[in-house]
Amino acid sequence: MILSNFFIKTQKNISSEDISYNAKLLEKAGFIYKNSSGIYTFFPLGWIVIQNIIKIIREEMSNIGALEMMMPALVSKQIWQTSGRWDVEIGYEVKSKDKADADFVLGWTHEEVISEIFSHFINSYKDLPLAMYQIQTKFRNEPRAKSGLLRGKEFIMKDLYSFHSSEDDLFAYYNQVALAYQKIFKRCGLNSIYTLASGGAFTIANTHEFQVICGAGEDEILVCSSCGYAENKEISNLKPGDKCLKCDGIIKLEKSIEVGNIFPLGEKYARDFNLKFKDKNGNENYVIMGSYGIGVGRLMGTIVELFNDEHGIIWPKEIAPALVYLIDIDKKIEAKELYNYLQNKGISVIYDDRDLSIGEKLQDADLIGLPYRLILSPKNKDLIEVKLRKDNKIKQLSKEEVINLIVKNNENIK
Amino acid sequence: MILSNFFIKTQKNISSEDISYNAKLLEKAGFIYKNSSGIYTFFPLGWIVIQNIIKIIREEMSNIGALEMMMPALVSKQIWQTSGRWDVEIGYEVKSKDKADADFVLGWTHEEVISEIFSHFINSYKDLPLAMYQIQTKFRNEPRAKSGLLRGKEFIMKDLYSFHSSEDDLFAYYNQVALAYQKIFKRCGLNSIYTLASGGAFTIANTHEFQVICGAGEDEILVCSSCGYAENKEISNLKPGDKCLKCDGIIKLEKSIEVGNIFPLGEKYARDFNLKFKDKNGNENYVIMGSYGIGVGRLMGTIVELFNDEHGIIWPKEIAPALVYLIDIDKKIEAKELYNYLQNKGISVIYDDRDLSIGEKLQDADLIGLPYRLILSPKNKDLIEVKLRKDNKIKQLSKEEVINLIVKNNENIK
Repeated sequence: MILSNFFIKTQKNISSEDISYNAKLLEKAGFIYKNSSGIYTFFPLGWIVIQNIIKIIREEMSNIGALEMMMPALVSKQIWQTSGRWDVEIGYEVKSKDKADADFVLGWTHEEVISEIFSHFINSYKDLPLAMYQIQTKFRNEPRAKSGLLRGKEFIMKDLYSFHSSEDDLFAYYNQVALAYQKIFKRCGLNSIYTLASGGAFTIANTHEFQVICGAGEDEILVCSSCGYAENKEISNLKPGDKCLKCDGIIKLEKSIEVGNIFPLGEKYARDFNLKFKDKNGNENYVIMGSYGIGVGRLMGTIVELFNDEHGIIWPKEIAPALVYLIDIDKKIEAKELYNYLQNKGISVIYDDRDLSIGEKLQDADLIGLPYRLILSPKNKDLIEVKLRKDNKIKQLSKEEVINLIVKNNENIK
Repeated sequence: MILSNFFIKTQKNISSEDISYNAKLLEKAGFIYKNSSGIYTFFPLGWIVIQNIIKIIREEMSNIGALEMMMPALVSKQIWQTSGRWDVEIGYEVKSKDKADADFVLGWTHEEVISEIFSHFINSYKDLPLAMYQIQTKFRNEPRAKSGLLRGKEFIMKDLYSFHSSEDDLFAYYNQVALAYQKIFKRCGLNSIYTLASGGAFTIANTHEFQVICGAGEDEILVCSSCGYAENKEISNLKPGDKCLKCDGIIKLEKSIEVGNIFPLGEKYARDFNLKFKDKNGNENYVIMGSYGIGVGRLMGTIVELFNDEHGIIWPKEIAPALVYLIDIDKKIEAKELYNYLQNKGISVIYDDRDLSIGEKLQDADLIGLPYRLILSPKNKDLIEVKLRKDNKIKQLSKEEVINLIVKNNENIK
């Protein structure tokens, strides 16, 4: 991206009422715009981050054999009445102008929809197992949406549903999904904690959440400092200072953000929508289901809550909107050449050729927070000044050393 | 895709009330599922087609310097009142469970939203021109949604908005967008006709539509059989049989589908949302806007309406869910090897290894409609039977000739 042909508007002052750091920082750095409470626009820079997260999710979903599809957001009143979830308060109702009554709810989860669909397509044990996901904008009536991307009225979710012929098969896949989720969060730079959580009315066992320790989180977990065993405070009998039963570690209470959750649903929705299969003996059984969610926007917000300093955001490499922020002191032809050279090597670059002072560009580079800042300056002769955003260390390197540093991730060079 | 690990369920009989051919054929071939009137699910096969169309759109938008962003679907009542469009009947209203009144409309177009946003970010002529687009699910209250993907209550749109300092600059870009649109439709296999259409209250000149001649279309255009000059019947003074003023051709009346439209908006929304810029002399002026839409799902529906025969769909190459449908008579190791070989050459393949009869597989191959059907059979020895779906011609070719045929698009081989 060459900034004179791109859109980036960082802001000195933002008038956000949001209490959350992620919203303030992302608005200041020009990644998002707040349309109204809990409702955000993603500017091009922010949308690239979302696409990078989606790319990771798609790869890891593909690795566990899940297929991508797309269901509607308009969910008919009738099927939500069938499952008993029509009257849940967090659902927005959708109505025609000329009517008082609503025909639809805006989907905030899709167990009903997918169960109804596959009741027409799953007939035999040969059709199982099956795992389908979508990456979709969802809607939730949140009266207190003040946490930026952590809790919105409109948000992007990845929701996965799996269908099985037995509980054993469900739990085998459930564990596969758990591993895939931990890979996804790790690739996004996050250390997620697999946390035992409430079962609730619609599951056959406890559910699990993926929690990231963070002061801005709305959840509280009891987690072992040694083995990482964790339980959500809502269901836990553990207390801070307790000895962990799984190892010799000590239990601590931490604030955390839930970035994902997985549910062993069992037969609940299969019963509601008559989703049955014939087993090898020709007997009809209800399909056993699981559902699994990741908040894509929330993931982005969590990363910003965790990775920042007083100057701005510090993006993990794999989801950064680009790897390199390039500034040239003299605006000479070399900068454009280096830009093309790096891009041809597969290294994404933001080249700041705007008519701004060097001071403003340096400030924006830190605020936007790409992993590497490169400066071309006559005083450095053939060397390039490289700053690693994560520790703000500065080095003078040759072009080849720069490539080596970025591509090989060999950050201990010299 | 290897079908034993994929989800494809073609249907013999569908109970659709849809009168449209695209819905029937796409449902039968397992690309979509109808959730309710005008509301569809895209199965993996259908979702790949949508992604292929989106890829083409993104490339051509990038070629004209447009940047991708994402605005919310929940549009606040207040800003639609500002523009005077709150009471438009096609807008679905969104309300909380406990309230009678709606707070939001579900966006079916985003002139208001983007004007409000950029009123905070465009200040100077230096910020112009600017072109931003999104690919988003939109919602429209369609009482008679019986045309499948051609007219839905929920549908995927690409909407582009451009911002200029003068009308000249707007119209220069308007023409660039028109060329990009024609490229997009051509890459999707469609011959689109640039058609003069109604201006309406909110534009500064006539708008233009991109119409595709098709008996299933809801529009009617008067088009010259020689030079292709066209006007929408709604605004035209032309009559069938007239001589075209632009050439010696004769005007014909044709039914058609509108796959895209472009609007020279002028200052309407800039005035509503106080979207101004300072020119070189320091004077404040309203920003001049254009808006440009393509119905992504409608494009898919149009392609199916046009390209089919009594056996099924005939996908154009660039948007087909895969290039090759591979069937092996003997289920031997060679089929898997050929699958891997083709995939490694960058040729996408659906390998039908399902436990079905050859007859059923051949039927599904035609119904699903990939450009090339390959059959491995002992009777052919080292040759592969190739069928071109578009003309159903069959040839016996060596592996190298198959590659040549598909990659080099040299369909006149031998």
